Amino acid sequence: MALKVHGLAKSMPVSIVMLCLAEKDQDFEFVPVDLSKGEHKSHPFLSKNPFGKIPVFEDGSITLFESRAITGYIAHKYRDIGTDLLRHGKVEEAAMVGAWIEAESKHFNPPSTAIIYEMFIGPLFGHTTDQSVVDLNLEKLDKVLDVYEARLSNSKYLACDSFSLADLHHLSYIYYLMKTPCADLINSRANVKAWWEDISARPSFVKVAQGLTLGE
Amino acid sequence: MALKVHGLAKSMPVSIVMLCLAEKDQDFEFVPVDLSKGEHKSHPFLSKNPFGKIPVFEDGSITLFESRAITGYIAHKYRDIGTDLLRHGKVEEAAMVGAWIEAESKHFNPPSTAIIYEMFIGPLFGHTTDQSVVDLNLEKLDKVLDVYEARLSNSKYLACDSFSLADLHHLSYIYYLMKTPCADLINSRANVKAWWEDISARPSFVKVAQGLTLGE
Repeated sequence: MALKVHGLAKSMPVSIVMLCLAEKDQDFEFVPVDLSKGEHKSHPFLSKNPFGKIPVFEDGSITLFESRAITGYIAHKYRDIGTDLLRHGKVEEAAMVGAWIEAESKHFNPPSTAIIYEMFIGPLFGHTTDQSVVDLNLEKLDKVLDVYEARLSNSKYLACDSFSLADLHHLSYIYYLMKTPCADLINSRANVKAWWEDISARPSFVKVAQGLTLGE
Repeated sequence: MALKVHGLAKSMPVSIVMLCLAEKDQDFEFVPVDLSKGEHKSHPFLSKNPFGKIPVFEDGSITLFESRAITGYIAHKYRDIGTDLLRHGKVEEAAMVGAWIEAESKHFNPPSTAIIYEMFIGPLFGHTTDQSVVDLNLEKLDKVLDVYEARLSNSKYLACDSFSLADLHHLSYIYYLMKTPCADLINSRANVKAWWEDISARPSFVKVAQGLTLGE
């Protein structure tokens, strides 16, 4: 099998890559990386990703790191299979996918990940929640989700009226965010809630969510 | 003129967009945004970018935000002019451009921006440098630049042997980083220093750097 994903299925960025492959109906070999043994910080893993982070993706001779670069590669290579997640050939929609991918990366992801770590993942490993970190990031995320709520009042999905990579990148993060005491960030906003319920019901995510077992 | 850039010429993300337009030899109308009056947090600016950040880019009916989305759009639209910054049609090189764009965004940019703010921009506006923030980010950036140094020992540019968007995104940030007491982060690494000297000598950057007047 030519495609390989190296990582941990319950990791958010790794699962995002698997989700993109599921959207494109591509089988792949999963290569577990034992973070507890520091495999990601050792050779031979570092020869695949010198930054020592999961996931790593291989397609024959191509080795890629960074989840958003990997999903972009997959979405482009398999653009004719399933939903075109980058809106090839539709100039304005493709441009908006780019803008909302960056919005997720720069505005949604940092505060979400901080809250998920402080309130969910950290405590599983003995970390005591730092409420000041939570509060700071809640304030940021609240403003970001106000923008999302307005955007989703006149667009079915974030970039356009078609599901795209910009929506996809949120899925595993919101999944774990909903397991924190902050689920109301999503549930209290009608358009964001409807969007989350729509995108999380996609067969690709239902499949990948089975592996999102942190805390179980 | 169809193309417009809204922002402040001495801002790092705004200048990155102007740099990309210079690489592609495209004229544009510059629309100043007065941050001191909070124009970026008010209408009509917010109708162009609901996140209230500069730059905003307009190309006829298309309005885009987020500097990296804008440069991606420009590099794709004008791929046949000047250097092909995304390596269209070269599958492996294009994939590596994607990975190194993300490396800049996720690994290089956050600690660099923190150091530039704490040691250069903040003090211009009366902020007292928080040395603990500097130290934390120096440690992160040091590791990132070790990866760059190794990468640049066997690749002329970050993604491949051709200058790409992955290199371009660093320029204004390193320019201001070199004005902090941390310039040795670059100068002490032979390959990183040679790469910086090469990319900062490009006519596009020499032109754009004239507007990078923070602190003058």
